[in-house]
Amino acid sequence: MTDHSTVSDIAPLASTLDALRAALGDDSVRTGDQIGDRAMTDWTRHDPTRPAALLLPRTTGEVARALAICHAARQPVVPQGGMTGLAGGAIARASDIALSLERLSGVEEIDTASATLTVRAGTTLQAAQEAAAEAGFELALDLGARGSCQIGGNLATNAGGNRVIQSGTARDQVLGLEVVLANGDVLTSLGKMVKNNTGYDLKHWFIGSEGTLGVITRAVLRLHPQRASRHTALVALDHYDTAVNLLRRLSTRFGNDIGAFEIMWPDFFDIGVKLTGTRSPFGQSHPLYALIEHASFDSTDDGERFSAVLTDALDAGAIRDAVIAQSVADVRGLWAIRECTAEFPVRLDAINFDVSLPIGEIGAFVDRCRAALDQRWPGNASYFFGHIGDSNLHVTVDGNSIRDVDHHAVYAFVYEMLGPLRGSVSAEHGIGLLKREFLPISRSPAELAAMAAIKHALDPHGILNPGKLF
Amino acid sequence: MTDHSTVSDIAPLASTLDALRAALGDDSVRTGDQIGDRAMTDWTRHDPTRPAALLLPRTTGEVARALAICHAARQPVVPQGGMTGLAGGAIARASDIALSLERLSGVEEIDTASATLTVRAGTTLQAAQEAAAEAGFELALDLGARGSCQIGGNLATNAGGNRVIQSGTARDQVLGLEVVLANGDVLTSLGKMVKNNTGYDLKHWFIGSEGTLGVITRAVLRLHPQRASRHTALVALDHYDTAVNLLRRLSTRFGNDIGAFEIMWPDFFDIGVKLTGTRSPFGQSHPLYALIEHASFDSTDDGERFSAVLTDALDAGAIRDAVIAQSVADVRGLWAIRECTAEFPVRLDAINFDVSLPIGEIGAFVDRCRAALDQRWPGNASYFFGHIGDSNLHVTVDGNSIRDVDHHAVYAFVYEMLGPLRGSVSAEHGIGLLKREFLPISRSPAELAAMAAIKHALDPHGILNPGKLF
Repeated sequence: MTDHSTVSDIAPLASTLDALRAALGDDSVRTGDQIGDRAMTDWTRHDPTRPAALLLPRTTGEVARALAICHAARQPVVPQGGMTGLAGGAIARASDIALSLERLSGVEEIDTASATLTVRAGTTLQAAQEAAAEAGFELALDLGARGSCQIGGNLATNAGGNRVIQSGTARDQVLGLEVVLANGDVLTSLGKMVKNNTGYDLKHWFIGSEGTLGVITRAVLRLHPQRASRHTALVALDHYDTAVNLLRRLSTRFGNDIGAFEIMWPDFFDIGVKLTGTRSPFGQSHPLYALIEHASFDSTDDGERFSAVLTDALDAGAIRDAVIAQSVADVRGLWAIRECTAEFPVRLDAINFDVSLPIGEIGAFVDRCRAALDQRWPGNASYFFGHIGDSNLHVTVDGNSIRDVDHHAVYAFVYEMLGPLRGSVSAEHGIGLLKREFLPISRSPAELAAMAAIKHALDPHGILNPGKLF
Repeated sequence: MTDHSTVSDIAPLASTLDALRAALGDDSVRTGDQIGDRAMTDWTRHDPTRPAALLLPRTTGEVARALAICHAARQPVVPQGGMTGLAGGAIARASDIALSLERLSGVEEIDTASATLTVRAGTTLQAAQEAAAEAGFELALDLGARGSCQIGGNLATNAGGNRVIQSGTARDQVLGLEVVLANGDVLTSLGKMVKNNTGYDLKHWFIGSEGTLGVITRAVLRLHPQRASRHTALVALDHYDTAVNLLRRLSTRFGNDIGAFEIMWPDFFDIGVKLTGTRSPFGQSHPLYALIEHASFDSTDDGERFSAVLTDALDAGAIRDAVIAQSVADVRGLWAIRECTAEFPVRLDAINFDVSLPIGEIGAFVDRCRAALDQRWPGNASYFFGHIGDSNLHVTVDGNSIRDVDHHAVYAFVYEMLGPLRGSVSAEHGIGLLKREFLPISRSPAELAAMAAIKHALDPHGILNPGKLF
């Protein structure tokens, strides 16, 4: 790769800022009090820090010029999107320059023949969703932070969210990508083709790399047809294995028309009912609950086929009970229980885990994890729920229930249990700053060495998001 | 990465073979006449060459030891699967050592809870498909070479095939991968998780890299539920744009229950009828034909909904005519026309193109390409068909119709037309040896430089499949 150096060696910050002002204009290079709180930390509120400067480029070319200058000056750069991350991946140190993509925003094109949307990195997910919907399509990516998070951050972290069981993660939505490398080279691979076997598929290197290999500036995303009818059910189950059987039964019958399959263990279900002031539709407690959505392309689908499968399962003793939402209010009531997690940051001292492991092993892991937590910290309050179809389990331990215990000890305790199962310490939130020390639980020395070799090849001076991931 | 060198510098072939025999056993290191014809070329029959040796390792550990020895000796290695490639990607030079994965075969596990299949690289696609079917699932990858091609080769080339519109390419089937790097390091990332954001997703670096970055030894593949009913139609259309409209109409109504959408231009349709000795179900010629499959998970689906959409389209003047297969014989008859391509190698002097470009631009490209061919080589016989839903167009020019023309001139002529459209010179077959010179049509200098940097990082001595891709 060519080196667009304009400064020959490690440069002092002042001269780097001068070069950046000359390249981007004074208005795009902020320092000191000109930098708002938003650039200082993410949704974890971890360690708010004012970076040495905040860059606000308006074009891919400006991003390229900024990185070329920082590369030559060996100046660390932290790419920032909507700052909704949950792993500290976009938090800059005081000596770093933050690079916000917020001005590089807007939907550039919707191609209805290709069913694609071309979008700039700083566009919020919600704006992209709305543009897709206006054109009669659906952008399959959706998550709670949709109003604030940005497409560039979604792709850099390979965001998961609400539709993974149906349409995959952020990665699966990408057909083309434009990325600026550490040295300022622009890789423009904005093809709309589903099939393209012309050498390495560069987009996959950068998706999920948490800003350590390049800065994503534009993307071509797949659009899906809109689903025309939705039906929601809450099912009571005996045991985790019967939940997996039900998932397979529904999947065999409806393929990826199953749009959600959320498993809640009783502690989680009960606190969900309590925190949201709703009530259980069942007259009694059950060992396990599944919130299931069936979403069909058929506008005349009245949910009969979906409820028939549940009725058959009930008759066969495969499930204990089921309620099917009959109104929008019913749907909201059922989802409110599952989405009580939105209250966790306020109501609990939440110690959160976002892990994944093989679907068949999640039930036993939950049992073992709960028993181990109870033995280690009697009286702890812990809540388990999972996007089971995605092999993803979320665990929240309430720090208020174990007041003298350092959070770090809880993290280490639970993550260590994953190792022998080849589980993942981060299903969807990424490693960032906060899970770095636990990465070796999920990755072998050979894998980590290969990652480091790739990092060095694409960012030889290590200026991109240093201290994250590695 | 550590260097498992056992030989300190560039070693003569004889000492490398001695080291390989000591590591793998005499039976696994073949030379001269012990090497069968199968190792000498692929399905293109291009330039048959006997490699310096053929290695037949039985385990991942043996692959690792073999590569460590070759890495230390700077000895080029060409990974070989079923040798069904169409780009010369597995053809060794006389000085190369071929490494066949054929003994590393067999399905290791089917996990019905996770819906995954763990398979060794040398397993034929058909054997993997059959194992999946026996367990009540479907492996979504399917292509004509299924009986010979191997999973390792399918993944190394990111094979496309018959189900891409429904379930994606080979890449989309992979959850976990085991790869041996050039230096013998083994990257074992055989997770069964759908979501796993713990650093770079290493599998994507190797899938589609055509054996230039590592040797794939095992994989965890997703399994899909089996579809319970299939309905096939042949539709006559006015114009390419009406074909795209019909695709969108069907997709909006049926999502990815549309399992095939194959567009045939009249020359292709006519030669298909002729070569297969079948007959057109229509009483007249039409400007365009679409072969469409609807495949549902609903075993009680009698095809009424599918035919109703076609009837509506007919009534609205959106299509000219349609026939729906009423029997297995009907289905075979319709597919026979499309699959006349199997006869091309025997009946034509086929100059084949496998290109992709945005779906909305394929129709105009075909018109322009045909006009340009007719102007340049009057009297040429050329045939166009495409997996339109995958943005993939196949063009075959019959060399017999332009006898004095060098094939290379035809390749250059058609590929050059793709450049301004940002089209791809290889939708599914890969670059290999045969399309190397045309790669810059589809990839920018910055992209090629980034690929070279990664190649150097993972294979610093350039021993893996040299001369391919780069």
